[in-house]
Amino acid sequence: MAILRNAQRIMKFVTNGPSFDSVMTKVEVVAASHGKCRCEVTLDESHLNRGGSLHGGFTATLVDSVSTVAVMCADKPPGVSVDMNITYLSPAKEGDIIEIDAECLKVGKTLAFATVDIRNKSNGDRLVAQGRHTKHIAQQS
Amino acid sequence: MAILRNAQRIMKFVTNGPSFDSVMTKVEVVAASHGKCRCEVTLDESHLNRGGSLHGGFTATLVDSVSTVAVMCADKPPGVSVDMNITYLSPAKEGDIIEIDAECLKVGKTLAFATVDIRNKSNGDRLVAQGRHTKHIAQQS
Amino acid sequence: MAILRNAQRIMKFVTNGPSFDSVMTKVEVVAASHGKCRCEVTLDESHLNRGGSLHGGFTATLVDSVSTVAVMCADKPPGVSVDMNITYLSPAKEGDIIEIDAECLKVGKTLAFATVDIRNKSNGDRLVAQGRHTKHIAQQS
Amino acid sequence: MAILRNAQRIMKFVTNGPSFDSVMTKVEVVAASHGKCRCEVTLDESHLNRGGSLHGGFTATLVDSVSTVAVMCADKPPGVSVDMNITYLSPAKEGDIIEIDAECLKVGKTLAFATVDIRNKSNGDRLVAQGRHTKHIAQQS
Repeated sequence: MAILRNAQRIMKFVTNGPSFDSVMTKVEVVAASHGKCRCEVTLDESHLNRGGSLHGGFTATLVDSVSTVAVMCADKPPGVSVDMNITYLSPAKEGDIIEIDAECLKVGKTLAFATVDIRNKSNGDRLVAQGRHTKHIAQQS
Repeated sequence: MAILRNAQRIMKFVTNGPSFDSVMTKVEVVAASHGKCRCEVTLDESHLNRGGSLHGGFTATLVDSVSTVAVMCADKPPGVSVDMNITYLSPAKEGDIIEIDAECLKVGKTLAFATVDIRNKSNGDRLVAQGRHTKHIAQQS
Repeated sequence: MAILRNAQRIMKFVTNGPSFDSVMTKVEVVAASHGKCRCEVTLDESHLNRGGSLHGGFTATLVDSVSTVAVMCADKPPGVSVDMNITYLSPAKEGDIIEIDAECLKVGKTLAFATVDIRNKSNGDRLVAQGRHTKHIAQQS
Repeated sequence: MAILRNAQRIMKFVTNGPSFDSVMTKVEVVAASHGKCRCEVTLDESHLNRGGSLHGGFTATLVDSVSTVAVMCADKPPGVSVDMNITYLSPAKEGDIIEIDAECLKVGKTLAFATVDIRNKSNGDRLVAQGRHTKHIAQQS
């Protein structure tokens, strides 16, 4: 519970302001444990492309941000991105409830690695995207 | 010149509205030719993370969006993302002028492939990130 | 059982000959079901780099080949690679028993997507690498 | 010239033995400079899949190995792979002469980053594949 409350506090702090993180304002942390973070968001127009589907850039931002919170849930600093990849598997649309599940695969001294599954709760938990994120978490590169 | 004007029109249409693409409002198309698109943006707070650096999610959105315009500059529909990857090489900060250079590596019947270099014009054209984007451009997946 | 026997037959056919697949000769299919394939290999010198660790190129070949068998276990042709990525998490050495677990995330008409976990059974099932593979499986690209 | 001779010596040392690197035996270093390495190979049966095309696992091995030599051409140790990705663009077949061009994008204290283009000299320098490779080159991970 302490980890969940902490993750929620981080998400609120990060998204509450004029930075790019404000695109995550409606994303809610629903579960968190050591090295893991699960979020949910109900898609509205601000998350979509002009074609009315979940925007690939927002999907990438979800992979980036939720995995970063997962790293912080392993008592590490947010660090700096090294490599990120996303495979896009199915679309999602306005009103769909999306679940973002990030899990650290390894947290080392210098690098942390996380995998992220994005599922559509409004469509049988269908996989929307899967990503992986490598972060440099040591004090200095 | 017709391709450049067309690319500028696409970017204006896409970013002008309540969709996620509005995060790209300040990104300007400065050059375009068949299968290529170059943009520029001066970084302000809305592009940064809470640490004051270019946000990894915005970087990914640049890779996604500018490569999509490059595909459209090859007379193709915007299509749907299949795979995207980004390698983050150096930070950028408020006030820096960032150049995003997207080039199609191949435009087939079903798939289009583009590579994207993001450079910091305020820091000796230092490479900020490099990405690759595969899109499904056929009518039906 | 029919799927397992079929996967074993595919692996034997593919590796038995002068092609590059012969590097997989010692890799054994131990389980298979619709869209899934699990293999094992005991590492010897032929799988290592000059430093005595599992070679990154062989790791990539495992991701490629075992995910391809998983696609064939979903009654699809082997298809053609589109995108592949590998994150390397921990080393493995001579004598270690390595498990390669490939699972299709989605099998569409044109594209198939698989994720692959490589674990070290001689080291507490530690994750050695994780990869993802997108294949074009339609008759013509 | 000293860098080229050194790169050739490294490639010979690495491929001459019973390790997995022996799959690279016929790959020749044709040019090298600080942080760059270019190789060539004429494809024979040992580089192909059962369908008679360049094997995706061998392609990945080329990305891995030639970029590692490029890192060593920047006076760094070979290091350990962190992330690698490959986009497959066009096939190549027996007898084709393939050029592998690796270039370091950045060589830091802890991490080195390289991009690799693989082109088919027998087919108008058509791009066969493009990859990126992130290596951990510090003494300790």
